[in-house]
Amino acid sequence: MKIGLLGFGVVGRGFYELTLSRSDMKVGHVICLEDITLPGVNVTRNINDILSDPEVDTVVEAMGGLHPAWDFVKAAIEAGKNVVTSNKALVAAFYDELLPLVQEKGVLFRCTAAVGGGICWLSELERVRRCETVVKLGGIMNGTCNYILDNMTRNGLTYSDALKQAQALGYAEANPSTDVDGIDTWNKLLISCNVAWGVSLEQSQVPAAGIRNIKAIDIAAFAEHGRACRLVSTGEMENGVISAYVQPKLFPVTDLEANVPANFNLITFEGSSCGRMSLYGQGAGRYPTAYNVLQDCVDLTRGNGFYSICTGKVNVCNDGKLCFYVRGASDAWLDSVTADHWGEGVITSPVSVSEMHAWCAEHPDVFMASLA
Amino acid sequence: MKIGLLGFGVVGRGFYELTLSRSDMKVGHVICLEDITLPGVNVTRNINDILSDPEVDTVVEAMGGLHPAWDFVKAAIEAGKNVVTSNKALVAAFYDELLPLVQEKGVLFRCTAAVGGGICWLSELERVRRCETVVKLGGIMNGTCNYILDNMTRNGLTYSDALKQAQALGYAEANPSTDVDGIDTWNKLLISCNVAWGVSLEQSQVPAAGIRNIKAIDIAAFAEHGRACRLVSTGEMENGVISAYVQPKLFPVTDLEANVPANFNLITFEGSSCGRMSLYGQGAGRYPTAYNVLQDCVDLTRGNGFYSICTGKVNVCNDGKLCFYVRGASDAWLDSVTADHWGEGVITSPVSVSEMHAWCAEHPDVFMASLA
Repeated sequence: MKIGLLGFGVVGRGFYELTLSRSDMKVGHVICLEDITLPGVNVTRNINDILSDPEVDTVVEAMGGLHPAWDFVKAAIEAGKNVVTSNKALVAAFYDELLPLVQEKGVLFRCTAAVGGGICWLSELERVRRCETVVKLGGIMNGTCNYILDNMTRNGLTYSDALKQAQALGYAEANPSTDVDGIDTWNKLLISCNVAWGVSLEQSQVPAAGIRNIKAIDIAAFAEHGRACRLVSTGEMENGVISAYVQPKLFPVTDLEANVPANFNLITFEGSSCGRMSLYGQGAGRYPTAYNVLQDCVDLTRGNGFYSICTGKVNVCNDGKLCFYVRGASDAWLDSVTADHWGEGVITSPVSVSEMHAWCAEHPDVFMASLA
Repeated sequence: MKIGLLGFGVVGRGFYELTLSRSDMKVGHVICLEDITLPGVNVTRNINDILSDPEVDTVVEAMGGLHPAWDFVKAAIEAGKNVVTSNKALVAAFYDELLPLVQEKGVLFRCTAAVGGGICWLSELERVRRCETVVKLGGIMNGTCNYILDNMTRNGLTYSDALKQAQALGYAEANPSTDVDGIDTWNKLLISCNVAWGVSLEQSQVPAAGIRNIKAIDIAAFAEHGRACRLVSTGEMENGVISAYVQPKLFPVTDLEANVPANFNLITFEGSSCGRMSLYGQGAGRYPTAYNVLQDCVDLTRGNGFYSICTGKVNVCNDGKLCFYVRGASDAWLDSVTADHWGEGVITSPVSVSEMHAWCAEHPDVFMASLA
């Protein structure tokens, strides 16, 4: 396998290093904007070096972002190259174009590292589907948010101090919106649902609420009621109808999720016969992510492409009702659904997920979390 | 795929049911001592019905026990049939004969359900090995012990009441020795190490201590020091030397292991680049176990046999030193290593694992657990 590697940042460099000891694959070209030299590798800024090299059978995309990453991936598929990517934003955004194109061109495609970094999440979802129906999936898919929430809970930090620590450790970007507003988790949820159920979710119908507005007083109120907050994704399939959303959730302190430390991920699916299965590990980072990119390349050498076949767009229905903790606003609607008070927040009577997210969108300073 | 199914108990019947909706496999014969009728299936007590049917390509063994299970499995392999089994005792006991025979006869063999029931443990260990070195493995592999320990800890039950509950729920046998003395965990540890490192551990060098002697006063002492007890397996590889043992361990109450509820399993490996990865799920039960047997059959239809190649017997060295909680005996040696007291028990200074197990073997009423 001769590889054209797009990007030489955290993941790209890690992947390159992992290939060095292998005889079954070799990085032949690297697209990199910096001036670097790698023995026996053509370092270039020109994608055509890769597209026009007939020996390159596989393109590994580790640039991140939508453009030019998608343009390069598309060109690679059109040139008949197999593709491996760790880019969740790209896969989530272009799912509807990507899968049919892969099929039409008869190439192989894999993206295991796009969800859960080093965790065998998507590869395991593929495996489950060979034998049974996934009933439910989701969990802690963003290590940065977990790091912030865990630090606030265990060590009593404020949100801004916990965020600063996450930034100092390289877990969070200078602009942390993608993580703390739940966008990263949302991308991963979309891909997971699409793979689990062989569909393409209507993205505008999948709401996401993040942790940007959480305060130490919220954490204290949760602790007083034996709960810990985590940002989680939820996808459910019942009678052919899919429900999918991202929001903070208050777990009993003895639940596994409440005890996930630092920047780890814990992702769960429930199968019709195997029951609950959870996978825990490093959801990001150079070597864990590069490891799953490498696993995908090994799968390609065995002819194993992405299993999921997308049968088309499906509607999402989030009519299910949950009780929520809400703090940071008050109005007649919230009063009308208030059932209890926790510190400065209220606990609502059962409210539909879609209604709660619609209300939150109009109240940007609110912090909200579901109780189950 | 036409299947000869050996055994129609909990797992065998579950597997049969799961095959009914599939077009790629069909159970043709069932070996069963009871008088049952299954539409279109030859129910028999004669293994030769299966061995002599040229259409049977795969034998699924779900009888349990060593004999006649091993005799039947051996005969099936010798007759050129592929074999899938969920029988951990069989795989652990006959590993040295089984793998060479499979290789010699050119058949396919899988045993994913033998460790972790419905959890994708062995299949994932195989996957890791394609890309990197497993540094460490182990964890909670026996749901019965976890059920007992969790109930004693969360609900304040005595050992005998918790055991009775486990028996009433069908988790524990009338003679619970295989579970509570750590033998089941020991079998699973042996198989896991053998798969992870492509070797065959010298079984007599792998010690196991169980939970038979634990009392409510121990649980109370652990709680007072912020710990919870779990029975775990440990396998480590460092510089080509393997350490492997089964013993109770005291986890900080915020560790994942301390929060594994009821009869769930949590099994972990550490890879050289992917880091810690843990798998959580149902380690036993009809449908979870049958699910992984089915997964193995699907793998066989794709030509994927067991990846592990056994390179031969290896010695085990358990010279690593740990601190232990010990209660139930006293002598000059224990006095000489006592560093602290927890309730009626003592905490030792660092003692080698092999030394501690040797001492426990001479003190059958002792309860012992490591602190790390």
